[in-house]
Amino acid sequence: MAEDLKLTPQSNDFSAWYLEAIQRAGLMDYAPVRGCIVFKPDGYELWERIQAGLDSRFKATGHRNAYFPMLIPESFFQKEKEHIEGFNPELPWVTEAGGEKLEERLALRPTSETMIGYMYSKWIQSYRDLPLLLNQWSNVFRWEKRTMPFLRTSEFLWQEGHTAHADEPEAREETMRMLDVYADFAENEMAVPVWRGQKTPSERFAGAVDTYSIEAMMKDGKALQAGTSHFLGQNFAKGFDIKFLDRDNQLKYVHTTSWGVSTRLIGALVMVHGDDKGIALPPKLAPIQVVMIPIGPPKLREKVMEKFGPVYDALKSAGVRVATDLRDETPGWKFNDWEMRGVPIRLELGPRDVENNQCVLARRDTGDKTTASLENVISRVKMLIDEIQINMYKKALAFRNGNCHLGIETMDDLQAHIAKTDASGELVGWVLAGWCGHPICEARIKEETKFTSRNIPAEPPVRKEKCIACDKEATHTFWIARAY
Amino acid sequence: MAEDLKLTPQSNDFSAWYLEAIQRAGLMDYAPVRGCIVFKPDGYELWERIQAGLDSRFKATGHRNAYFPMLIPESFFQKEKEHIEGFNPELPWVTEAGGEKLEERLALRPTSETMIGYMYSKWIQSYRDLPLLLNQWSNVFRWEKRTMPFLRTSEFLWQEGHTAHADEPEAREETMRMLDVYADFAENEMAVPVWRGQKTPSERFAGAVDTYSIEAMMKDGKALQAGTSHFLGQNFAKGFDIKFLDRDNQLKYVHTTSWGVSTRLIGALVMVHGDDKGIALPPKLAPIQVVMIPIGPPKLREKVMEKFGPVYDALKSAGVRVATDLRDETPGWKFNDWEMRGVPIRLELGPRDVENNQCVLARRDTGDKTTASLENVISRVKMLIDEIQINMYKKALAFRNGNCHLGIETMDDLQAHIAKTDASGELVGWVLAGWCGHPICEARIKEETKFTSRNIPAEPPVRKEKCIACDKEATHTFWIARAY
Repeated sequence: MAEDLKLTPQSNDFSAWYLEAIQRAGLMDYAPVRGCIVFKPDGYELWERIQAGLDSRFKATGHRNAYFPMLIPESFFQKEKEHIEGFNPELPWVTEAGGEKLEERLALRPTSETMIGYMYSKWIQSYRDLPLLLNQWSNVFRWEKRTMPFLRTSEFLWQEGHTAHADEPEAREETMRMLDVYADFAENEMAVPVWRGQKTPSERFAGAVDTYSIEAMMKDGKALQAGTSHFLGQNFAKGFDIKFLDRDNQLKYVHTTSWGVSTRLIGALVMVHGDDKGIALPPKLAPIQVVMIPIGPPKLREKVMEKFGPVYDALKSAGVRVATDLRDETPGWKFNDWEMRGVPIRLELGPRDVENNQCVLARRDTGDKTTASLENVISRVKMLIDEIQINMYKKALAFRNGNCHLGIETMDDLQAHIAKTDASGELVGWVLAGWCGHPICEARIKEETKFTSRNIPAEPPVRKEKCIACDKEATHTFWIARAY
Repeated sequence: MAEDLKLTPQSNDFSAWYLEAIQRAGLMDYAPVRGCIVFKPDGYELWERIQAGLDSRFKATGHRNAYFPMLIPESFFQKEKEHIEGFNPELPWVTEAGGEKLEERLALRPTSETMIGYMYSKWIQSYRDLPLLLNQWSNVFRWEKRTMPFLRTSEFLWQEGHTAHADEPEAREETMRMLDVYADFAENEMAVPVWRGQKTPSERFAGAVDTYSIEAMMKDGKALQAGTSHFLGQNFAKGFDIKFLDRDNQLKYVHTTSWGVSTRLIGALVMVHGDDKGIALPPKLAPIQVVMIPIGPPKLREKVMEKFGPVYDALKSAGVRVATDLRDETPGWKFNDWEMRGVPIRLELGPRDVENNQCVLARRDTGDKTTASLENVISRVKMLIDEIQINMYKKALAFRNGNCHLGIETMDDLQAHIAKTDASGELVGWVLAGWCGHPICEARIKEETKFTSRNIPAEPPVRKEKCIACDKEATHTFWIARAY
């Protein structure tokens, strides 16, 4: 590969690497609208596979999809005070339509608690209407100051689940169930290990009683909030008057939840698995699992192609997502190109392979090459698919755990850790810290170190005794880290 | 069923019937935003099944999905003169975002030729980049004066295909291929017969060289444009400077196409197959194909349920979309409710059935009831599914053909036909008419009869010799009808 086709190394400038990698892999392009991107086919197909994996999990847990209007009247936002305060600064507004100025401004939805709350108040009358378990796949808008492709864009795609329940325990159970669904999907399909935990009040969703998140570590050691699940209590029920007649003949407010993941998961995939060769996709989500490339001198190509077609057909019939690369380029150029695009397995077939009734299988995750007999190429490829999926998860887990620091007790320890890693070029990673629960201590950590609280895991690896900031008794043990 | 639970009969007031039927079937609800609706789970699931059927057809014809920004800068619309004239009156505008007034207004997309044209001009350089075959599933906005659920709403869901080609014949071939894909889907999945044909210039998509449509007849005899495919020539290529270096080393403009169908297909399903009992869904698209209802006295219910579960499991394992209704309501109430919701097959199981090792299968399309042995209930249900799908198409085809009038030659004939049907209460239906090709004649037909040109079929049932309006030589034979 010519030097100028290489990516900026991750260790030089991770952001530059990321922006180059996602464009070279054909995932996105910049759009001519502030902070917006175009999802190119290879990027959108990742989203389609993420959707399929999540959607089947949502349906298996009793949810159905629906679609609510994108435009939300301004007055709706006023009904939940914290909600409007949280989202107001980021809203785009429609003020004119059909040639006329509108009487009331309409917001482009940043999330749909208000619109859905309004409809739920019409639909829910009795305990028989509960639980109401809906999900929506849609576009949403948040006009944020600083944007980054996939991670934070003015328009993005997501799903938002909205459920209503007769009582608090059931709503809390739902909140945790969906957090577990997200964690299961991230770990088993995306091969991305995550910490589940509760957000501190300052990081809560605007309008929630409690917010929970899954947090993943990117290859630069920074944290990415990869999904959130909110227990909304009766806040929106009261704002939108969502009441039901219970079995005991009492009129009660419902308890609601909401939960969402977005196209930022594509960014997570790239930042967790990518390397200096480009992006790397876990086989379960990769649009192409195996790319077949004929090698050897062109004059012997015909002989190679006699075996090439049948191997392709056999893999395809076996349900493997396989593609061929017959472009007029050198094998070396193609190898680099497909490594850049993150395809898990490269299958090479040359004249000598054909003679020996074999092929070469090269792994994107380890770079290892092995030969496989053409007799059992299907089972070998399938085994490799499973192996790569597991290995990518293990590798990401080892990296994550290797950069989670458990022995930092005080702000001095933390500053020393930051100074040491800065000097050595190591990653600063995440720190497990004790916290007294006071927002002032949380704010101090952020001010002095740019570490923000990620979440409070229910089962931290160690339980801290003292608050890292004030040295008083710790009521919580949380992850703190620099974050996207 | 209590009288007040019955729908307004179709023959009394078709619009009232439609609005009642879609709400009672749980397909939609009105939203608190002008001209917008909520797609409730049963309505949205129809859309999911329509999406699945079309998406696999798009992919089989070489297209991939992508996603482009929803907000389109005002200046983009100026680049194609007819396009802006056609869409400007219907656009909603974002004028403020993130607390600031925008320098340039952003339109909520009514369709994406402009945004996609802009991106194509960046992506297409060489003949090697062609054809470029993309599709987008998204929400779109058209602020129309008169709205009707599913058929015409301020926001709706659709797909829009956008392709670019090296030459005109290839682009024209694509335009017709996608028209055929739509017709195939409508007829074979939706059981809705359609006429394929070309739109007259006055009914063309704003910015197209030629527009083709599929047109379906609703149960009130009116026409519904159910899908369109546009040959855009080089109009957008010139507006957005989409050029490529051809094999002959010449820089040329591409030829583009676009094609779309929307959630109005849900309206078509309802208006083609529904009757006074409610909506009726073709088995291939029905979310529930078979609903199982236990009957007989409650004290014998236990005995019935011993067989009920195994039959449910067997149907489910066989891939039939089956549901059970165990609510505390009378069987009669349940029968009516599921007929209202359009489920193709009702399976009744009572104590006597269990004794005889049989069940009753009732068809939504004909009302026929037959008994089936529990031994071969799976094969009987599967046969019935196929039979109902075919019968619904045949029924709709016979109705459509029965209301297509081929023998009307002059405006006097047409006025007499209208007067006669008005007097007798028959449907006025569609009329096949000759046309000289002059827009004045087309306008006169519309003014005097409210009949608009639907499309010019490539192969009309009869070829007309004279223009229905001016009696001059007919250069075209087209369908004219009152339309949604």
